[in-house]
Amino acid sequence: MKNLSFEKTAIKDGFWKFYEDLNRNQVVKSVYDRFKETGRFDALKCLWKEGDENKPHIFWDSDVAKWIEGVGYLLMKNPSAKLESLVDEMVDDIAKNQREDGYFNSYFLTVNPDGIYQNRGDHELYCSGHLIEAAISYHQATGKDKLLQCMLKNVDCIYRAFVEEKTAKFQTPGHEEIELALLKLYGYLGNEKHLELARFFLNQRGEQREDSNTQYGQDNLPVRELKEAVGHSVRAGYLYTAMAILAKIDEDKELKAACDRLFENITTKKMSITGGVGAERVDEQFSYAYDLPNGDTYNETCAAIALALFAGELQETQADSKYGDLIERIYFNNLLSGVSLSGDRFFYMNPLELDLKKYQRSTFQAACERAKVFECSCCPPNILRMLATIPRYAYTVDGANIYCNQFIPGETNLTINGKDAKILLKTNYPADGELEFTYHGEPAALYIRIPSWCVEYPGETENGFAVYSVKDGDVVRVSLPMQIHFMEAHPNVQDNAGRYAVMRGPIVYCMEGLDNGENLRDITILEQGTHRVVTEDMIPAPILYMDAKRRKMTDELYRIKNAEREFFTARLIPYFSFANRKATDLLVWCMVD
Amino acid sequence: MKNLSFEKTAIKDGFWKFYEDLNRNQVVKSVYDRFKETGRFDALKCLWKEGDENKPHIFWDSDVAKWIEGVGYLLMKNPSAKLESLVDEMVDDIAKNQREDGYFNSYFLTVNPDGIYQNRGDHELYCSGHLIEAAISYHQATGKDKLLQCMLKNVDCIYRAFVEEKTAKFQTPGHEEIELALLKLYGYLGNEKHLELARFFLNQRGEQREDSNTQYGQDNLPVRELKEAVGHSVRAGYLYTAMAILAKIDEDKELKAACDRLFENITTKKMSITGGVGAERVDEQFSYAYDLPNGDTYNETCAAIALALFAGELQETQADSKYGDLIERIYFNNLLSGVSLSGDRFFYMNPLELDLKKYQRSTFQAACERAKVFECSCCPPNILRMLATIPRYAYTVDGANIYCNQFIPGETNLTINGKDAKILLKTNYPADGELEFTYHGEPAALYIRIPSWCVEYPGETENGFAVYSVKDGDVVRVSLPMQIHFMEAHPNVQDNAGRYAVMRGPIVYCMEGLDNGENLRDITILEQGTHRVVTEDMIPAPILYMDAKRRKMTDELYRIKNAEREFFTARLIPYFSFANRKATDLLVWCMVD
Repeated sequence: MKNLSFEKTAIKDGFWKFYEDLNRNQVVKSVYDRFKETGRFDALKCLWKEGDENKPHIFWDSDVAKWIEGVGYLLMKNPSAKLESLVDEMVDDIAKNQREDGYFNSYFLTVNPDGIYQNRGDHELYCSGHLIEAAISYHQATGKDKLLQCMLKNVDCIYRAFVEEKTAKFQTPGHEEIELALLKLYGYLGNEKHLELARFFLNQRGEQREDSNTQYGQDNLPVRELKEAVGHSVRAGYLYTAMAILAKIDEDKELKAACDRLFENITTKKMSITGGVGAERVDEQFSYAYDLPNGDTYNETCAAIALALFAGELQETQADSKYGDLIERIYFNNLLSGVSLSGDRFFYMNPLELDLKKYQRSTFQAACERAKVFECSCCPPNILRMLATIPRYAYTVDGANIYCNQFIPGETNLTINGKDAKILLKTNYPADGELEFTYHGEPAALYIRIPSWCVEYPGETENGFAVYSVKDGDVVRVSLPMQIHFMEAHPNVQDNAGRYAVMRGPIVYCMEGLDNGENLRDITILEQGTHRVVTEDMIPAPILYMDAKRRKMTDELYRIKNAEREFFTARLIPYFSFANRKATDLLVWCMVD
Repeated sequence: MKNLSFEKTAIKDGFWKFYEDLNRNQVVKSVYDRFKETGRFDALKCLWKEGDENKPHIFWDSDVAKWIEGVGYLLMKNPSAKLESLVDEMVDDIAKNQREDGYFNSYFLTVNPDGIYQNRGDHELYCSGHLIEAAISYHQATGKDKLLQCMLKNVDCIYRAFVEEKTAKFQTPGHEEIELALLKLYGYLGNEKHLELARFFLNQRGEQREDSNTQYGQDNLPVRELKEAVGHSVRAGYLYTAMAILAKIDEDKELKAACDRLFENITTKKMSITGGVGAERVDEQFSYAYDLPNGDTYNETCAAIALALFAGELQETQADSKYGDLIERIYFNNLLSGVSLSGDRFFYMNPLELDLKKYQRSTFQAACERAKVFECSCCPPNILRMLATIPRYAYTVDGANIYCNQFIPGETNLTINGKDAKILLKTNYPADGELEFTYHGEPAALYIRIPSWCVEYPGETENGFAVYSVKDGDVVRVSLPMQIHFMEAHPNVQDNAGRYAVMRGPIVYCMEGLDNGENLRDITILEQGTHRVVTEDMIPAPILYMDAKRRKMTDELYRIKNAEREFFTARLIPYFSFANRKATDLLVWCMVD
């Protein structure tokens, strides 16, 4: 059971075409420009000296790596001599400055050579991991192996320092990523040493010998004993992803069981309705069960991406629509909210509520405006590489069983019974729920995910999929009723008590102050009122206009409960499109009557 | 129009007798013990040397001073040789260590003599102010003038440093208190120099030459131009109190108008329903209009006390029940919440919502348990002096007009038309609203405050008072209907949207987790359900048992809006009695249906 590679699907039109084009036309350039300005690319030249501006940072190489990885994916679909020459120059710098023994990190080579492999928290292996992913992507795209050779040499260096000679001062990295990268490298080249090194890093965890904050850096338990998602949410997500891959390679049931427990724990106790995770702003980490604040949350874009990667790997382990459901939730909400509709501004945090006045008063509050660049700029290039591979989890194939997990209009090429096959999908999803599949190829079974939000779907399902036997030329039509739903959170989610999230299909909606005035929390949506679904320019998914009421203004600070209300039409926009005009209030969880 | 001094009223029984006794029997001793343990009293001996434990702090003298002031008030009602000898020893230490020029501050004399009058933020004049109040109280109580003489000498020292010789490095103190103390001293001894010095400190403000954070220390505007309460809330309250006193002495209409604006601004835009002020935890200061968070609030006990002092002074400026309303709100809620029912534990912050899990997770949250002592221990002795003078704002007299502002059962002696008069008040207030006044004396007009919460009161009022002509032997009965009210906050108070505070009479109620389970925010009180008002041991005001509902538990983190509820009886206790068992969740603003 394998996810079909993203390049097998040509996106034709609709919602995801908007984002594919935005990514290619704007995001890649915006991220490049900011990284260029801030010296991240030049850092690879390893020429920085005390007194120079743009002092390198321990994790800058990972930013660059994710940009290269994303460019590789873009090149697989559309060649670009210009992008290629930019990458080639970076690769030359890396090759030139890589140490004889294979070590490379532009910060440590220039700023702190004595610090190499001395501190678990220093992100060296995290950077190496991202550079490995970049090398694979760029090699796949161009056939050029210079970066790949550098990284093979680098992996040998890591192997010596951590396994053979144990000269490193720690055993496992404080920020995971190397594990999944090594497993991907093993999948690409088949070198057992890379698999062994990945296993080593995963199996070393949980010895609690690394530092005092073992939970933050996922050293609290051996990986096979994990039950609860804890610690830094991006790091945790990358670790769980690696665990899922290794569980498949080794057919390791204990490891798979741990992955299942973690998936269950996150999705039933530790995730915002937008798919955001890592609620606790302090240290960007998972909080305790049901602690899911809205304004005060972290929900880093990278953490949602890491969770999608985890779900994407698990999707290959069993036919269950819950993985596709989660990926859809993340993609349509907390992932896309990380990038502006103009493709040049980003969010690191993705709160579900913003109070502009509080923000202007305090530095504690989440930013109300997307930024062009962050000091810690992991998210923008992460979005780049994800949007360059939009269909990566759309189809899973198991023999002659084809699972359609995500509904991306276009043409998908695959192989069934050793012969070429093709699926054409026509849909306006998520504007509506009409799906039309045309199949060409050997007889097969087509499993179409019926999203968990679609409680009105009248047909039968198997593990959450509607099943159709298809032969060459067959057309399958599925209609997903697209109602507006008022969602409630578990009673223990204190911040959402008495409040509801408006969803239509996979999309979570929100109100902004610019449309609805200042006191958003005082607005009540009328459940039985008129709700209009309107397509407008600028936003690639429908807007909702909903009858609503709110209290009238008064001079009194406190008064006896008063039933008087004024009625108006509230404008709700997709959550992913918030903060695309100017700084304003935001609210997802509203009152409903 | 003058407030009758507290010692004119002998509290007979009921609610306030509980607190008078608690104060005399427990609070005074608890505060003494903690101050003794932490070296605050010994610091007066000025023997501390580097390396010794219990290093003095810049404001320790103010803690001691408030304790002495409170003891003075206790002694006025009940002599105690033991308490007197304790104070005498402290006074001897002060007199012995006061510098020849009149300067005294135990911290600066021992730790930092070079820092004397160098920094506006160093609380020296704040300490002097409290010592002046202590000296007056102790002189009134005992006739002993040793401390008073010390403080007169100290005032002369201040006058020289700030007015005559201007050797001080700043013009106005960063923490107000000296102003109101000097005005009180002027009221006590009639020395014009003290009035002049108070005027000087008040009129110097607003030059913005003191430091960058002019708003925090009330140097943002000249006092007569103030429109909005800003900055540190305790300091602001003490400043406004001094402004109100000076406005009366000087018949300064501009100053009175500023006081009126500030009173209006605080009570209509910047006050919790408990009378708490200073919502912003950062710097313990007033936030912007309607920013009144519940869990994240500061609401320092001292700030509520300072606001009561301000209202108490304004109460002498015009016959308006709003001053008595505010004082009642503060006393029955945010003042009493500052001390445990056992009299030995205190709260510095008074939040309206506590989430124990959040608190255990983060140091940012308000404390869930009252503490025996704080490093910054201004609040416990402030409670001592306020509870030693409970009736201080109960009656105001203007010729033959007697205003009864607070309902304290007992006997009050006063003078009407130059002859002794007496009011006997029988009431169980606030357990019920039945008031029976018996008057003895020359004919007079008795104005009885009809609280603003009592919207059901059927009679006529004048400026918020029911008016009765009384002659010797008359009995006046007033019945205040005591309904349960569900109160709403202004729509711009974001944190209270869709939520209501339960009040009965002047008392704000709350739910605790110990009685009502964990997810307090998910509870809905049934407006039309059964509400029982029950008197129980331990808490000196009624408990409410109210029909309520909450959602049933589920495994799902998110699901479609569900109407299923389970019904139960919620237990609501007076807010002032929260956190008297063990650490638990707290909620004031709940849902009502």
